[in-house]
Amino acid sequence: MPKLTGYFKPVGQDEEEGQMKFLYRAVAVPAARPRRQVGRLVLIAVDCDKFSVNSSSQTAFDIAKFWGHRHISNLLGHTDDRCQRVLPGADLHQQENYFSRETLDRLSAKRTDKGWLEDKQSDPNTVYLLFSNCSPMVSSPLEDHNAGGENQLCRFRYETVKDLLQKHATVLIFLGVERRKKPSSQTVDGVREPPAWFAINTDEDTAELLKRCREKNCCFPKTLNRDLLKFSEEEAGVVAQARSVLAWHSRYSFCPTCGSSTRSKEGGYKRSCLNSDCRSLKGVHNTCYPRVDPVVIMLVIHPDGNQCLLGRKTIFPVGMFSCLAGFIEPGETLEEAVRREVEEESGVKVGPVQYISCQPWPMPSSLMIGCLSVAISTDIKVDEKEIEEARWFPRQQVIDSFRGTRPAFTVPPRQTIAHQLVRHWIGMISNL
Amino acid sequence: MPKLTGYFKPVGQDEEEGQMKFLYRAVAVPAARPRRQVGRLVLIAVDCDKFSVNSSSQTAFDIAKFWGHRHISNLLGHTDDRCQRVLPGADLHQQENYFSRETLDRLSAKRTDKGWLEDKQSDPNTVYLLFSNCSPMVSSPLEDHNAGGENQLCRFRYETVKDLLQKHATVLIFLGVERRKKPSSQTVDGVREPPAWFAINTDEDTAELLKRCREKNCCFPKTLNRDLLKFSEEEAGVVAQARSVLAWHSRYSFCPTCGSSTRSKEGGYKRSCLNSDCRSLKGVHNTCYPRVDPVVIMLVIHPDGNQCLLGRKTIFPVGMFSCLAGFIEPGETLEEAVRREVEEESGVKVGPVQYISCQPWPMPSSLMIGCLSVAISTDIKVDEKEIEEARWFPRQQVIDSFRGTRPAFTVPPRQTIAHQLVRHWIGMISNL
Ligand SMILES: [Zn+2]
Ligand SMILES: [Zn+2]
Repeated sequence: MPKLTGYFKPVGQDEEEGQMKFLYRAVAVPAARPRRQVGRLVLIAVDCDKFSVNSSSQTAFDIAKFWGHRHISNLLGHTDDRCQRVLPGADLHQQENYFSRETLDRLSAKRTDKGWLEDKQSDPNTVYLLFSNCSPMVSSPLEDHNAGGENQLCRFRYETVKDLLQKHATVLIFLGVERRKKPSSQTVDGVREPPAWFAINTDEDTAELLKRCREKNCCFPKTLNRDLLKFSEEEAGVVAQARSVLAWHSRYSFCPTCGSSTRSKEGGYKRSCLNSDCRSLKGVHNTCYPRVDPVVIMLVIHPDGNQCLLGRKTIFPVGMFSCLAGFIEPGETLEEAVRREVEEESGVKVGPVQYISCQPWPMPSSLMIGCLSVAISTDIKVDEKEIEEARWFPRQQVIDSFRGTRPAFTVPPRQTIAHQLVRHWIGMISNL
Repeated sequence: MPKLTGYFKPVGQDEEEGQMKFLYRAVAVPAARPRRQVGRLVLIAVDCDKFSVNSSSQTAFDIAKFWGHRHISNLLGHTDDRCQRVLPGADLHQQENYFSRETLDRLSAKRTDKGWLEDKQSDPNTVYLLFSNCSPMVSSPLEDHNAGGENQLCRFRYETVKDLLQKHATVLIFLGVERRKKPSSQTVDGVREPPAWFAINTDEDTAELLKRCREKNCCFPKTLNRDLLKFSEEEAGVVAQARSVLAWHSRYSFCPTCGSSTRSKEGGYKRSCLNSDCRSLKGVHNTCYPRVDPVVIMLVIHPDGNQCLLGRKTIFPVGMFSCLAGFIEPGETLEEAVRREVEEESGVKVGPVQYISCQPWPMPSSLMIGCLSVAISTDIKVDEKEIEEARWFPRQQVIDSFRGTRPAFTVPPRQTIAHQLVRHWIGMISNL
């Protein structure tokens, strides 16, 4: 297997005659290789981080494709020849969406290892995140929290939070251990284990909690739907995991089967009923495990291939249109859910459905399953209980709105899978 | 849009020199067309039932592809040119799995229309299904329920079940209305609406319940994992929906947020807390809605492309091997869940992941999301808490096991997505 030597990285953008251009840079290239082979060589390495993204969540491939840099997208598009041969249909440049980066190894087998978990809790290298009412403590670089900029999770050591661990109302979640960036093949005994991460939710007074942090500008964001989108890609993935599990504890503290109290077990990934006669204690029951709600979100393409269907809810910011979406129901496939939701919300009938990518959405615990689909009817009749308007947008209007030149509508934020689905469709068109 | 005129239908199989051959028949072909155009013409019709399956859940396309009937698979593979042009990546021959056929239109908007629901309940055309302990009343054609053959749902009219509807412990689910086979474009006022379907779960004595049915050989199957696989494709989809929702009522009759009692609303798709101070009554909370548990199930392909990884659990029948699978966790994408589960269970590392199709699995309410994936390491180290054995099987052994000639292992039943994933891989190989 070839060693990781480097990768192409989009390093920025350059404005030239009103047209944006991205710059590419090969990072840490092996000195011994001739220059023109470098790109190809480093990209076929399995460990190569092809998913490295810029501030708009785009990989080098996305950018090259979107802006028509054929020679670079071709280069980037021919990595992993081996996997391509084994699984010809696989999209090797799978979009990595916000909330999707897994920086921790969950080590789920350790959740039942009480001794190991206890050791890790008091380990001085362990990282703790503090939550109050399922909102994470963050430090924001700017005085004005509304002015953009990146939120950073406040990280604590055992000494600073050990009193909280003793309290009854505290919920503790084992999130995992840091992934080693470069797994060493010559690990020796006694090598230091990577740090473990835990999340704590507490009901202590938030003003008191904030005093534990040395950083200035600390807070527990109140407008979660907006503030949770301000993390780095790495931290967003951790927040998604922690917040979803904590929200489950907050909403599912009683046994749904018998109404008794329950207690947290297995590093916070299980709740057991305290009523020893309860049916939920016999066999395996989903009532005891965190809930994940699968949602379909879809971009519907007009049968002419040149328009897409977007809708807006009353709660959206003025002028914003986005993809339709809805929860998958019991006994339903994701394809049927796409067809049912689109027809219910807009009156449009849908034929083929294609899965593109998915995104955890911790508000509180959805999994957004993103699809493209083709309409087989075009008349729109909106269900006003669900959305206030739905329209077919011509592709040029969509492209202009994404580029910010003559926008016909406000696009959903880049951190949403809706944004990425539309961008995927635009990229697809430009390849036709 | 072209009218539905007929379709190719696999009508059976023919054993000839030890080799199975499927026969194809064009059904209800339009008389005016020249014969050689028939296949193509009828298949491009949008309403054409391309998903018509034989007793092994295979479409004509699946069969033609599997057995190498190139001229027929090419013909079947070129339908829907228009959609293909709009969405080049879409698999227009998307596998329809068992439990996936939607024969009812759920009409979810009617769930909040109390008057309409009440009218439908007493409508003499309405169909009722009876469940006891989430098991459906069925009539089985054979005396010996173990001997195979198809189960049929017992269907009741309002008059036969109206006493049950009055009882406190009865749970009533509105399943939907029958889909019109040929939607008439000239509907006139007064046209009879299609029948509505409801499911009832009751705690009445099962012997008493069985007396309500005129059919012989009625029962409430006890071995659900086996008996729920014996329905027709059409009925299986209804069973998946009804049983998942009923199982939710059975397990979630208390409010998980405060422990109070709840009551069923909105045609059985919501439960509301009876404690007027409960937080779950403010805003929208997932605690009030049926739970669907997303699961990844994956066929892992060896980097050489010629072997696949299958495992067996202790509870499997002797000799059976199947795909690995596991629940998607909070904050996780389905691709990450595939990588985590495969590594946890077998020690094998996985690279690219490709979504293939999904299957509702009402035991009690999972959504099995089926993927192919490519291994990037090959050493197997099983987690004995999860599976007892995992092995790389060469493709010829897999093909032989599926054909039943010199089987190396027992394949999972055709109704499972595991079966369909392996079959998909075999079909894919034969196309390379
Ligand atoms: Zn209980
Ligand atoms: Zn409550």
